[in-house]
Amino acid sequence: MESCPVNYALSLLSGKWKLRIVWVWVNLKCVRFNQLQRQLEGVSALMLSKSLKELEADHIVKRQQFNEVPPHVEYSLTQEGQKLDVVLNVLGDWGEEVHALETT
Amino acid sequence: MESCPVNYALSLLSGKWKLRIVWVWVNLKCVRFNQLQRQLEGVSALMLSKSLKELEADHIVKRQQFNEVPPHVEYSLTQEGQKLDVVLNVLGDWGEEVHALETT
Repeated sequence: MESCPVNYALSLLSGKWKLRIVWVWVNLKCVRFNQLQRQLEGVSALMLSKSLKELEADHIVKRQQFNEVPPHVEYSLTQEGQKLDVVLNVLGDWGEEVHALETT
Repeated sequence: MESCPVNYALSLLSGKWKLRIVWVWVNLKCVRFNQLQRQLEGVSALMLSKSLKELEADHIVKRQQFNEVPPHVEYSLTQEGQKLDVVLNVLGDWGEEVHALETT
């Protein structure tokens, strides 16, 4: 791995969509592909699908297939993925502070 | 702004390079363009320059021009940019934990 844990974490999460995808989950817990796409304004199906595959390979997201009629697939965060909640909340605090400064 | 501070923060920081750029600074404090490019493996001059302009416009990075001979430009984090240190350290803790799991 990257010897620095910050760079390692960034290598798993960088790009326009991954942290946004995780944030949708932190709030919605368990979602289907179409719901996820509706929540992420501007993401293409191709890009969302690619991001999900990478997040799944990195054990941040898990994919569950239900063989009901009609069959469907649900995605949710793994235990590790759920821990990003803390990171995103700290990031949100920062966002709030920066925005307050920009509007004063 | 985005009504959610997490999405707002992500809109300022997403993409492959911005958080990596900030992280170089957290460690090096004040760097020139060429030093920054050497630290960020794989970034093109064009992409680095675009990212810096956007970070500057969003008050995360400041650019200082020195009219010495030869003239040079230095970049550093603003006060707001420096506060991302906390976010990146929390992210680094997560990276460390995930990596430990993957290797056990």
